[in-house]
Amino acid sequence: MLEQPVLTDKSVDLYHRFASVRQYTEEQCAPLQIEDYVPQPVPFISPPKWHLAHTTWFFEEFVLKPYSEHYQVYHKDFSFLFNSYYNAVGKRIFRADRGNITRPGVSEVYAYRQYVDDAMKTLLAKAELPAEVSETVILGLHHEQQHQELLITDLKYILGHNPIFPVYREGFSLVEQKNERSDVIRIPEGVYEIGFNGEGFCYDNELGRHKVYLHEYQIAQSLVTNGEFIEFIKDGGYERSELWLDEGWSWISNQPTKGPLYWHQLEGQWHHYTLNGFKPVAEDGILCHVSLYEAAAFAEWKGKRLPTEFEWEVAADQFNWGQRWEWTNSAYLPYPGFAKVDGAIGEYNGKFMINQMVLRGASTATSPNHSRKTYRNFFHPQLQWQCSGVRLAF
Amino acid sequence: MLEQPVLTDKSVDLYHRFASVRQYTEEQCAPLQIEDYVPQPVPFISPPKWHLAHTTWFFEEFVLKPYSEHYQVYHKDFSFLFNSYYNAVGKRIFRADRGNITRPGVSEVYAYRQYVDDAMKTLLAKAELPAEVSETVILGLHHEQQHQELLITDLKYILGHNPIFPVYREGFSLVEQKNERSDVIRIPEGVYEIGFNGEGFCYDNELGRHKVYLHEYQIAQSLVTNGEFIEFIKDGGYERSELWLDEGWSWISNQPTKGPLYWHQLEGQWHHYTLNGFKPVAEDGILCHVSLYEAAAFAEWKGKRLPTEFEWEVAADQFNWGQRWEWTNSAYLPYPGFAKVDGAIGEYNGKFMINQMVLRGASTATSPNHSRKTYRNFFHPQLQWQCSGVRLAF
Amino acid sequence: MLEQPVLTDKSVDLYHRFASVRQYTEEQCAPLQIEDYVPQPVPFISPPKWHLAHTTWFFEEFVLKPYSEHYQVYHKDFSFLFNSYYNAVGKRIFRADRGNITRPGVSEVYAYRQYVDDAMKTLLAKAELPAEVSETVILGLHHEQQHQELLITDLKYILGHNPIFPVYREGFSLVEQKNERSDVIRIPEGVYEIGFNGEGFCYDNELGRHKVYLHEYQIAQSLVTNGEFIEFIKDGGYERSELWLDEGWSWISNQPTKGPLYWHQLEGQWHHYTLNGFKPVAEDGILCHVSLYEAAAFAEWKGKRLPTEFEWEVAADQFNWGQRWEWTNSAYLPYPGFAKVDGAIGEYNGKFMINQMVLRGASTATSPNHSRKTYRNFFHPQLQWQCSGVRLAF
Amino acid sequence: MLEQPVLTDKSVDLYHRFASVRQYTEEQCAPLQIEDYVPQPVPFISPPKWHLAHTTWFFEEFVLKPYSEHYQVYHKDFSFLFNSYYNAVGKRIFRADRGNITRPGVSEVYAYRQYVDDAMKTLLAKAELPAEVSETVILGLHHEQQHQELLITDLKYILGHNPIFPVYREGFSLVEQKNERSDVIRIPEGVYEIGFNGEGFCYDNELGRHKVYLHEYQIAQSLVTNGEFIEFIKDGGYERSELWLDEGWSWISNQPTKGPLYWHQLEGQWHHYTLNGFKPVAEDGILCHVSLYEAAAFAEWKGKRLPTEFEWEVAADQFNWGQRWEWTNSAYLPYPGFAKVDGAIGEYNGKFMINQMVLRGASTATSPNHSRKTYRNFFHPQLQWQCSGVRLAF
Repeated sequence: MLEQPVLTDKSVDLYHRFASVRQYTEEQCAPLQIEDYVPQPVPFISPPKWHLAHTTWFFEEFVLKPYSEHYQVYHKDFSFLFNSYYNAVGKRIFRADRGNITRPGVSEVYAYRQYVDDAMKTLLAKAELPAEVSETVILGLHHEQQHQELLITDLKYILGHNPIFPVYREGFSLVEQKNERSDVIRIPEGVYEIGFNGEGFCYDNELGRHKVYLHEYQIAQSLVTNGEFIEFIKDGGYERSELWLDEGWSWISNQPTKGPLYWHQLEGQWHHYTLNGFKPVAEDGILCHVSLYEAAAFAEWKGKRLPTEFEWEVAADQFNWGQRWEWTNSAYLPYPGFAKVDGAIGEYNGKFMINQMVLRGASTATSPNHSRKTYRNFFHPQLQWQCSGVRLAF
Repeated sequence: MLEQPVLTDKSVDLYHRFASVRQYTEEQCAPLQIEDYVPQPVPFISPPKWHLAHTTWFFEEFVLKPYSEHYQVYHKDFSFLFNSYYNAVGKRIFRADRGNITRPGVSEVYAYRQYVDDAMKTLLAKAELPAEVSETVILGLHHEQQHQELLITDLKYILGHNPIFPVYREGFSLVEQKNERSDVIRIPEGVYEIGFNGEGFCYDNELGRHKVYLHEYQIAQSLVTNGEFIEFIKDGGYERSELWLDEGWSWISNQPTKGPLYWHQLEGQWHHYTLNGFKPVAEDGILCHVSLYEAAAFAEWKGKRLPTEFEWEVAADQFNWGQRWEWTNSAYLPYPGFAKVDGAIGEYNGKFMINQMVLRGASTATSPNHSRKTYRNFFHPQLQWQCSGVRLAF
Repeated sequence: MLEQPVLTDKSVDLYHRFASVRQYTEEQCAPLQIEDYVPQPVPFISPPKWHLAHTTWFFEEFVLKPYSEHYQVYHKDFSFLFNSYYNAVGKRIFRADRGNITRPGVSEVYAYRQYVDDAMKTLLAKAELPAEVSETVILGLHHEQQHQELLITDLKYILGHNPIFPVYREGFSLVEQKNERSDVIRIPEGVYEIGFNGEGFCYDNELGRHKVYLHEYQIAQSLVTNGEFIEFIKDGGYERSELWLDEGWSWISNQPTKGPLYWHQLEGQWHHYTLNGFKPVAEDGILCHVSLYEAAAFAEWKGKRLPTEFEWEVAADQFNWGQRWEWTNSAYLPYPGFAKVDGAIGEYNGKFMINQMVLRGASTATSPNHSRKTYRNFFHPQLQWQCSGVRLAF
Repeated sequence: MLEQPVLTDKSVDLYHRFASVRQYTEEQCAPLQIEDYVPQPVPFISPPKWHLAHTTWFFEEFVLKPYSEHYQVYHKDFSFLFNSYYNAVGKRIFRADRGNITRPGVSEVYAYRQYVDDAMKTLLAKAELPAEVSETVILGLHHEQQHQELLITDLKYILGHNPIFPVYREGFSLVEQKNERSDVIRIPEGVYEIGFNGEGFCYDNELGRHKVYLHEYQIAQSLVTNGEFIEFIKDGGYERSELWLDEGWSWISNQPTKGPLYWHQLEGQWHHYTLNGFKPVAEDGILCHVSLYEAAAFAEWKGKRLPTEFEWEVAADQFNWGQRWEWTNSAYLPYPGFAKVDGAIGEYNGKFMINQMVLRGASTATSPNHSRKTYRNFFHPQLQWQCSGVRLAF
């Protein structure tokens, strides 16, 4: 699953890295009330409580059970409750029902975390850790970092759909960044190499390194701003079917609100829910929370297009990225030579390679040290709840 | 809305009665964890938190706002959040979304209750209370008692759909009653009077008192037992379409489990979730948690039928009742002379008089002093989550 | 299923009656193009071709197969294709798929009718016909007359949802009747007898004759007119939730058009599709094609109510009826002593006794000689496609 | 929309080509009964009557109305009825309702074809035809050829879902082909050119010609056979979640039948509906009517994969193709430099470039002269009703 010819992580480092990542998840939850941990308002959102437990279950299932002698599982039913999509590891609770499971409660989930952390630390403190154990631990930490991002965006969805718009944390917002540069990058025609090539961790879907042929193209330094998108709205962008993909048009026709997620028009002025409360939309702020359908319609309106994921990766060293996940016009499909590993961990990425589009970059919700230019994120084209933005190419 | 020619409740009594009913609701919630207050697994269930707030809102909206001088509403958005079906009192949150509203949290809801209770007690302590105020307070208390019953049955639904089957309270079960008598009552043909006729409170749907003509019939002293229903199952009751109403057959064909709600078959033996945990079904226990469709199919299988609500009421003095809501074969429709009162409170009962069937009696979940033989409960025929049972007639 | 103490139909009469009813069905179809026989635009509509075949199948299945020696079924698959709701007679094609079955074609269905008619006439020409045979034949003829009414209203639905509004037959309209009288009938309190009591045929659901007690009431001679209903619309009747049953309000909120079925507003004037083409709505015409929800909201707006089916039947000799099926506020439930007969024919009526409301009278679409004052028609409260109207009581 | 530097079609040729293509459509319909022209059993199927009219409407709308002086449209409502997805040309009938429109009937649709054909032939007989007219006519003919293929596959769906399995034409079957070769082709690493490059017609989505870099791969000469797929079924292929894409697993879990479309298991032997009737499946026949999900699961089971559309095109000269549309693992996305043309015709291809997968080749249902190796067909991954097969790569 992960190609790691030189294992640079010593066990002692892994111990601290494990502690650090695990702690960060809990820090994210510090401002929450117990009630906030529970609901699942739509199936693609998971309750914060579930994120806390599921990331813990990963270590119990894939590290402690196979590799820690005499380990006793914390609770026999948790594997069933907190498994996610791993069909190979027994039955799991129907995804849309996660928000109805009130027990174990939050304090017991924290106790479960503590129990597993203690066992993990004991394991990690050992002098000699086989490579497959440390590789699985590293995978588990990256897995937890992915869930950290989902945890904060799912939480925004929960709070942002409450009519009283609760504040998560004063002064904390995912969406207030501005562009620093505005010129255009030109990339010449030729053969380029794509995919992960360094040391350290990467996901299986970033391998193997391979060649692509790119025709000449240009790509913007800056991301699309709120102000540009407001121009699109004012110009009737949401009412002009010719700008939209056919399924995008069906989608938007059934949406009660025409605008990025969390946007509301009050007395002629756009406002949006942020984790810092309900605020006016800043025109020079970088656009956030749009679907691929909106991104593509906007690009069409501009007479431009979205880049492919290859165009993005080749140019990435020449622009700033990391504030928005950026929609590309590439479908999420395997690279040449992609192969799933055996067993449940093999379900990690490959089976989602249909009907989803690639996003590149990283966002303000992404965990520290969890981004690289070869990282391939992917979502269905109608989804808006990640910190997704738009960079134009032509 | 309520006919009450002689007001026997003195204000001083009302004060204590108010305090007692309000306290009982909170006692019901004593065993809950915070998380249990939040979810709404299906639209016909409401979160316990919502029940606590909605019953409080009733007093704020219909008593304190119109009748308590200088009263300040606790929070301007609560009317929107905790209104239920009263279309006349402004917009309300979509019913199926109640489980996604995490704020206000449980402690704030209790603070809301405290705030309203204080204001109510100040009002009720006054020497001279106009009749319309005390009548509305009494209505509000009955309304809260209805919600007390829903609170406990909704909670059973939440806990009973958790795969780890949490115990609500040791030793507490809604479903362990047994029959004491087993003979049959014969009622002669004739004109009988139906509807509320006493002093004290009743709902508008129990009025006015009127005559019906009944042909001779017989009705059982005892309620159907679990053992009898197991015989029905063993005899293929769930597979024989000729026993079922047409829409009942469609309903059960789409149900994953063929049996009363909370029943599960383990190694050939029926078990069920109770608020006391997961237990074997006692054969001599009184059947509970069946839909009207199941009740009617069972009666057909027995060669008998369900009584009408009039047959039930006329015979009610001659049998024990109060342990199950008993399905009748009467649709929920107005009595002769029924009239809605004006305003939002007029929405209380009349507008539900379509597509629902009447249940008579009361159940082990019914609040103390909240039953009388003229009481008309009503639910859609597929619902099982109330403590509903079967009494046969022929 | 049918109580018929004195069988007045001689076989020779039955022969001619059979021929006459069967011929009438085909006359109804004379203006159709082949294409019109095929579609099923919504599940509660059946294709004309299916009506033709299903009524034929009834005689093959319940008369010829059991009682005609050496009878060969026309086609082994037709029982499967043209069975409707008779669960006891083997599997049947899923109801919503009827419109996708193009073969057998129309000409073969007519050949099937001819084949069965020939066999039936041979049987009916015999001197001695056992009572159970003639009773089943009579039931089959009434069954076919019911389908004649559905055939014409289903056809109206098919043609009335075609944007070019085809004419079925010049000069033919179901909806042009006017009231002749306008006074009010007062019925005194007392015990009345209800249900079928004469000679000749009736359905099982009209039996047995029984007593009801009615309180004094008044009922209108006239049916509600289009003009009165337009007043209701102009007064905001479709926007005032307080006038509607709760489920009626949900229903109308999801309807794209607020008005009786087939009504369209063009340049401020109401028009409607009739089988005679697209026409202006006559204000003095009798209202048609309303749901029970609309009927009940209109009555509420008028400060009156719909009569019960018992009030309707007791007063029926004193007013004109037969032009609209008239919604009552009675749920479709069994009379005292109702019992299903054994076998498939027993499925005829009893199993539909849930969630439907009774309509009394007859309509301009009803076949000749297929009405009597004890006849109980029944539909779900949202359905508009029958010729349903409103008579008020108070 | 179409790049055609040298127009080789002389007007006189176009006249005959027009006549020939239009006639072929009607020949396809010769075996139909009138009823077969009407239904639309699922939204992705169109009624044969609609195909006949829609292809005619194309010439009326895009050729006769703009370019034929004094042309009178045949019927003012037909543009509304027979427009398909061209949002720019006025409102259109909701796609899922096409099967409920019985008028105009089949004979009137043929009259419409005759009327438009006469006008077209008059136009085409003129000496000097501007290039844009002849280009649009050619596009219209290719459009009609596409619909010829859909007409036959839609018709198979209609007849194949009739429980009596009618024969379309004796001796005619889409699915009886066998492989002629069985070796494997090896393609070396390098830069290849992709896209249309010749003279004559192509669709906009095949342009522009561009370079891709391919890594070395192998691809089979032969298509997967029924027998190989039966092995997959016998090995539990439909029950092993690890072989399936995640959304494929959800899809197949909700399918009542596990097998290619039209396959039924009778007494342990696979049979399938063909346009020649209900027949046993030949083990050495080429597999047909599988979804991409099934194709991908099969490839996974074989330890191989589906080729990309580029791999397919580069190798296409070295294998036989044209009997099945062959699923590729490429999403349907624009080539570099793709640009939509203005106006309604610009809606032809580009707006469908989301959530669909590319199929390459052609099938036994494809019209004569309507295939080329650069042709990009595309469907949603769950669809089975085209003559879709599987060629493996690795």
